[in-house]
Amino acid sequence: MNDHLTKQIAFIGELEKLKRVTRQNKTLDDRFENSAEHSWHAALMAPLLAEYAPEGCDISRVTLMLLVHDIVEIDCGDTFLYDETARREVEAEEDAAALRLFGMLPQEMSEHLLALWREFEADQSADAQFAKVLDALQPIINHPITRTDGQNIHDLKRSQVEAKKAFIQERVPALWPVVLNALETCVEKGLVIDA
Amino acid sequence: MNDHLTKQIAFIGELEKLKRVTRQNKTLDDRFENSAEHSWHAALMAPLLAEYAPEGCDISRVTLMLLVHDIVEIDCGDTFLYDETARREVEAEEDAAALRLFGMLPQEMSEHLLALWREFEADQSADAQFAKVLDALQPIINHPITRTDGQNIHDLKRSQVEAKKAFIQERVPALWPVVLNALETCVEKGLVIDA
Repeated sequence: MNDHLTKQIAFIGELEKLKRVTRQNKTLDDRFENSAEHSWHAALMAPLLAEYAPEGCDISRVTLMLLVHDIVEIDCGDTFLYDETARREVEAEEDAAALRLFGMLPQEMSEHLLALWREFEADQSADAQFAKVLDALQPIINHPITRTDGQNIHDLKRSQVEAKKAFIQERVPALWPVVLNALETCVEKGLVIDA
Repeated sequence: MNDHLTKQIAFIGELEKLKRVTRQNKTLDDRFENSAEHSWHAALMAPLLAEYAPEGCDISRVTLMLLVHDIVEIDCGDTFLYDETARREVEAEEDAAALRLFGMLPQEMSEHLLALWREFEADQSADAQFAKVLDALQPIINHPITRTDGQNIHDLKRSQVEAKKAFIQERVPALWPVVLNALETCVEKGLVIDA
């Protein structure tokens, strides 16, 4: 294999590692969800919910953004959404991880994906802002379906989740009922405190 | 939530089930790979290897095709590539599964994804033919990385794998060295018999 193809295949092989990075969410077979299957789910939500995208969104770019958005977790692991301190601390590490991981690819694709990931993180463009909405919606839909044990390990409150997800209401009001509906089910199942 | 959005979210929730459908391949944390994480991996390979796509391919369509290509396994499970009898038997079941699953969506998206999935299965269009190549390449790249125990449970032979993957050489000769290279490593590691 030539050097160009060798780099591409090494990167594709490296992606295996995202399948062992686990999140706080569960799966129906009672594992912790991993960031690869989460990325599949979130990426597929882009075309499925395309009609709600803010004007100017390119759904193919949003899909690709969601396919790559968690790759840095290969080096940094997943940081729990409600752990503010850890989230601030991990930022510099994630940028270094992006440089290392996307840097495995031939230059043009490396620069393309690094820029796309940084655009997602910066959360300024229409595409990034819609991608962030979908990334935040996926666990909300997942949680009442997969967490069948009625446990609320992190003592999450309804108000806390609503505050964290409020940007969905601002950006895509039509999708806000999804959050409220899921939260209602979570409260009924004892997964979120009604406070 | 209105009926339209309710259908969309029910489908997105149903997708959770693909995360518990396992394949014959393994993961680095020694699970059997599931079809959701496989789909993420294969879908991301479309933009990564876009330069090798046959003329006329639309990489965004190939990506979406790979995101949805295994959803029918929610009802039918994964059929082992080398089990020819089981693969013939499952065809009608898979079409029924596609009707049920994509049928959960509002009509326009339902028809769109059903057509896209059938196009993948028919394996005639440029997009489908490239998607099939990537779907077949992903486990070849995965296998020598994740199967660290040196076991060859299905007594796979090099010639058998080469025959099954030969269409990659016909369609995208530039990617054939990836198969030969991975097979070489598999033989070295005792994962494939040198015959």
